[in-house]
Amino acid sequence: MTESVLDYMTRLGRAARAASRVIGRASTAQKNRALLATANALDAARAELVAANEQDLAAGRANGLEPAMLERLALTPARIDSMMLGLRQVANLPDPVGAIRDMSYRPSGIQVGKMRVPLGVVGIIYESRPNVTIDAASLCLKSGNATILRGGSEAIHSNRAIAACIARGLAEAGLPETVVQVVQTTDRAAVGALITQPEYVDIIVPRGGKGLIERVSRDAKVPVLKHLDGICHVYVAAGADLAMAQRIAFNAKTYRYGICGAMETLLVDQAVAADFLPGMAAQFRDKGVELRGCARTQALIDIKPASEDDWSTEYLAPILSIRIVDGLDQAIEHINHYGSHHSDAIVTEWQGEARRFIAEVDSSSVMHNAPTSFADGFEYGLGAEIGISTDKLHARGPVGLEGLTCEKYVVIGDGVALRGQEPG
Amino acid sequence: MTESVLDYMTRLGRAARAASRVIGRASTAQKNRALLATANALDAARAELVAANEQDLAAGRANGLEPAMLERLALTPARIDSMMLGLRQVANLPDPVGAIRDMSYRPSGIQVGKMRVPLGVVGIIYESRPNVTIDAASLCLKSGNATILRGGSEAIHSNRAIAACIARGLAEAGLPETVVQVVQTTDRAAVGALITQPEYVDIIVPRGGKGLIERVSRDAKVPVLKHLDGICHVYVAAGADLAMAQRIAFNAKTYRYGICGAMETLLVDQAVAADFLPGMAAQFRDKGVELRGCARTQALIDIKPASEDDWSTEYLAPILSIRIVDGLDQAIEHINHYGSHHSDAIVTEWQGEARRFIAEVDSSSVMHNAPTSFADGFEYGLGAEIGISTDKLHARGPVGLEGLTCEKYVVIGDGVALRGQEPG
Repeated sequence: MTESVLDYMTRLGRAARAASRVIGRASTAQKNRALLATANALDAARAELVAANEQDLAAGRANGLEPAMLERLALTPARIDSMMLGLRQVANLPDPVGAIRDMSYRPSGIQVGKMRVPLGVVGIIYESRPNVTIDAASLCLKSGNATILRGGSEAIHSNRAIAACIARGLAEAGLPETVVQVVQTTDRAAVGALITQPEYVDIIVPRGGKGLIERVSRDAKVPVLKHLDGICHVYVAAGADLAMAQRIAFNAKTYRYGICGAMETLLVDQAVAADFLPGMAAQFRDKGVELRGCARTQALIDIKPASEDDWSTEYLAPILSIRIVDGLDQAIEHINHYGSHHSDAIVTEWQGEARRFIAEVDSSSVMHNAPTSFADGFEYGLGAEIGISTDKLHARGPVGLEGLTCEKYVVIGDGVALRGQEPG
Repeated sequence: MTESVLDYMTRLGRAARAASRVIGRASTAQKNRALLATANALDAARAELVAANEQDLAAGRANGLEPAMLERLALTPARIDSMMLGLRQVANLPDPVGAIRDMSYRPSGIQVGKMRVPLGVVGIIYESRPNVTIDAASLCLKSGNATILRGGSEAIHSNRAIAACIARGLAEAGLPETVVQVVQTTDRAAVGALITQPEYVDIIVPRGGKGLIERVSRDAKVPVLKHLDGICHVYVAAGADLAMAQRIAFNAKTYRYGICGAMETLLVDQAVAADFLPGMAAQFRDKGVELRGCARTQALIDIKPASEDDWSTEYLAPILSIRIVDGLDQAIEHINHYGSHHSDAIVTEWQGEARRFIAEVDSSSVMHNAPTSFADGFEYGLGAEIGISTDKLHARGPVGLEGLTCEKYVVIGDGVALRGQEPG
């Protein structure tokens, strides 16, 4: 193209801002029609989708992409089915837009309440998986937002083919195609432009590896919805049912090693350590999990030493660090200090321990007698998630449709005016 | 002091982070005791407060401070009364911390809900008014946050004397003095350090002129709660009761010229302009308000022309720009384009016009048959406000106790684990 990347991205941004006004006032029925029509368009375009994806795969193989990367890139019939199912599920979710809450009369006579409204324009930056194009676009559309999608250059043909299906879906519902725009250039400068245009983009959601998220966060002038690490803990407290504790800790570590909610450090109260650790360690070893322990743990079981770094490492692998703590206070202190404010659990039957842990652990999800592996939008009933946030402002934890909206005040009067005017 | 400003601010930040754990779990009764004891301490320290303030006033007069600035700086007996009243009012507000909502069972057996928790550490940067020290500290304390207060150097003696009263109040309630810390140095580098320590400070609230807010926002690495402009509109729609419209528009402009909710542009539907504008203009002129109008307005009444700049100017003065619009669409477009997303009102009896205006105007407060001058935390029933935000993330509009908190997920199980473990 002859226009510069910056000009191109500005044009996309302007179009997205204008489209956000249209999708922001679209009815639930119209948005659902667009979602269902997109599912049908994907179904009708299976051959084109596979052909486009084959182009990406061939280029990927030629460029020496790793097998795991090629696997993520592949658009199999099952993945097309899964995108279609996702669209239909999002169509079935309740529409958050327009809900008004807490409308009440004030002494002056005005009524004041809050109305839920879309954020406006959401920018999504992601890596190889082309199905993110549908997942992200559908959540943004249902929540009344316009979207600018910037996928990885290795998936450009697949993403264009998917974008064509979304455009068909939008058109069938009478919505402008600019509601969902896929960045058509693979120039890296496009990302730089997208994350520095607060006048056109209201929030950026980076989806991918930690390197991508760090780069985006560092350079962005637009708010970024993100989590960097998932250093999650299970604390087996003095009041724990030890059989339950073993079941929870085992599940928190081994359900899937690679998820952000996987436990990375197990904290064990000194009161129960001698009873609990030998059996627990044996189960982890049978599963092939490498264990690293504090000095007190080393005194109880045969285990490699944990270094200071271990307490702040997200392994995402079959490795687990174990620390024996003096009690609840030290457990909470350890988690708030070394953790990443993601998801942390206590196992106890004692209400007093649970109450304090829940109130004082400063994490986006705090759990009682449940494994941290549950930290997921689907498990929480959000239907789907656009991401997980460990920041404290706006949305915290798994973010679904509600996190893609905000609330404005609605004030209704009957001509009432404030008394006491400007002197003079 | 021999330590550097950066070291000093880091020490304050660390102490604030530690204190935030204590105030975050303090009971409502304990926090209220601290607020009421601070009010009593102010009452007992009237002589010291006035003496300290006299030092600031003398220095201000010597440095040639403007009379308006000196007026804002003065700590009169009435202002001490008003600080005490404020403390007692905040003690009477409901405590938002710890509330759990929407706890419900999921198919897996876990219960999921959201718990309201403090943000952590709030940094307040403000100019000459020493009463902000009490206003801000009391809201942060009640919402369970630690506070670092950086007032203007011209008020340093007054702020130190007030801080001593807060320290007495905290001590009486058994809370550490580090819950509320007043920056003791007047070195400007302290502000730079405060706004770039996300590890110790969770949110910055700048209170003061636009210059201060712009500087803080530009340089901050911590999220900033702010609004820059209040370019507020009243739209007199085709369906307006014209007598009501005149009352509302007059109040929106003249209640107080200097508040951020003051109307700066009046939009009038072409259908009612000829009937409405002559009487309205006469009332404004009698009050001494300078009027500037679009070409169509100039054709109807004798008025100076408005320039393009007028539509995006916050006068904060007895000046008003007037534009005749074709209808609702143009009014909404004008407000979303030229406004500052602060507070905007429609006057109409027609439900359809009001419904669209409320849904589509992208402002933190949208009003129907009420003047924009109502945009205020006290009028909205928040009890008090720490500021007004025109950003879309986190809190929007007047921000009270709730805006100083966030929500984390609480997950409760009974040992349930996720099925389907890591293969292998």
